[in-house]
Amino acid sequence: MRDENKMLSEPGGKLRLFVDDSLDAGARIAPTDGQAHYLLHVMRARSGDGLGLFNGRDGEWRARIAEVSKRSCVLICEARVAEMRASPDLWLAFAPIKKTPSDYVAQKATELGVRVLQPVITHRTIARRVNLERIVSNAIEAAEQSERYDVPEVREPVALDTLLKNWPRERRLVFCDEGGAPSIAEGLAAAPHSDAWGILTGPEGGFDDAERALIRGHDFVLPVSLGPRIMRADTAALAALSVWGALKGDWHSE
Amino acid sequence: MRDENKMLSEPGGKLRLFVDDSLDAGARIAPTDGQAHYLLHVMRARSGDGLGLFNGRDGEWRARIAEVSKRSCVLICEARVAEMRASPDLWLAFAPIKKTPSDYVAQKATELGVRVLQPVITHRTIARRVNLERIVSNAIEAAEQSERYDVPEVREPVALDTLLKNWPRERRLVFCDEGGAPSIAEGLAAAPHSDAWGILTGPEGGFDDAERALIRGHDFVLPVSLGPRIMRADTAALAALSVWGALKGDWHSE
Repeated sequence: MRDENKMLSEPGGKLRLFVDDSLDAGARIAPTDGQAHYLLHVMRARSGDGLGLFNGRDGEWRARIAEVSKRSCVLICEARVAEMRASPDLWLAFAPIKKTPSDYVAQKATELGVRVLQPVITHRTIARRVNLERIVSNAIEAAEQSERYDVPEVREPVALDTLLKNWPRERRLVFCDEGGAPSIAEGLAAAPHSDAWGILTGPEGGFDDAERALIRGHDFVLPVSLGPRIMRADTAALAALSVWGALKGDWHSE
Repeated sequence: MRDENKMLSEPGGKLRLFVDDSLDAGARIAPTDGQAHYLLHVMRARSGDGLGLFNGRDGEWRARIAEVSKRSCVLICEARVAEMRASPDLWLAFAPIKKTPSDYVAQKATELGVRVLQPVITHRTIARRVNLERIVSNAIEAAEQSERYDVPEVREPVALDTLLKNWPRERRLVFCDEGGAPSIAEGLAAAPHSDAWGILTGPEGGFDDAERALIRGHDFVLPVSLGPRIMRADTAALAALSVWGALKGDWHSE
């Protein structure tokens, strides 16, 4: 006997897929080739199995797998199971680092709830080639597993001075500075209210002195310290995102 | 011309080594075979080059390389460059996860300043074999690079119920719970003062209901939420350590 209400699940929880299409009752969604392969051959899904779908706009929908052939299937939207909730308005501007840490930053930043991932090229940035596709696929996978309803927007890399020149003036930028600043908890507590935030973290070896002066010269910048230890670039990014999430983000009880 | 004041450095900063020996002016330290290989063949150190040493007790010392042969050398302690400062009294009790994430947790937790790494076996713990040597070597490397003066103590794995039975009653245990708790910022703000802390994070798939009830039944436990998204086990550990560090640890300006 096949359980007609079977929902596919992974070790972390129910199976969820990010799709581009609009989600509505009865909508027929064609999964990408990669998604179809994952569903049919990795998860061994069968006609009638259920899963979750989200697209960053329509909340989360329960869908059923139908019209299964060897290589493809159709996902039929049944009902909305969660209203749309956008991730907090937080951008992460980070200097890309060696391959694995960048994957890690994309994945963890997504789990921690950023809305935009912005690679920034600095003087000491070693990894100048940024594999955006790889960052996007890490972000999508992390969004699927973390029960987000949206996927962070991954932007093209920009030079630090361009980032600062074009930075929206009303968006407060938390600058993780290695030299002389209030702690991030003190800095966030003392900062004027803002609805829009960013976090800027440096490359291996940090920002150089000219860059630090340039960054600190902007009114929208809030320089903060992450404590007395030297952190790797990826650790600093995740630590700052975590503290921001707990103090200014959506971690508080509702 | 050789610079007699040359200090060896790595991309992140000056080269530092953790040693067991006592550090005192004139002390002669024999590096391990691995350290000697790293100094002589990876860093291509020469007689007279300087580096930092720490042992968890005597602060940080400047030392010089001497008596270089093909496979060995001696490190001669010159002067103390920093007084001893212990890491905050924070233990991380974590369910071991697949290989790379456990390395990552050991490394990041060390950078974030924990004093004790305690693997915990839970019902859903998949990785029951814990490679303690590997955790120790990750912790030492991270301590060397993060400018700590001590290395976290890595303890033998214990079962969850044993951990709770033997837990020191005056040590407050922050429990990262997936169901219904105040946010970690609210929880830490409302908690009575304590000088000794721990953080408990679960395995992939989380604690089961019986375990959650068992944990919550103890007076020393402070259940907290890490927000509305589902985090991987390693992300949860790092997020909780970061928020604790910012709010209760040593991140504040001095």
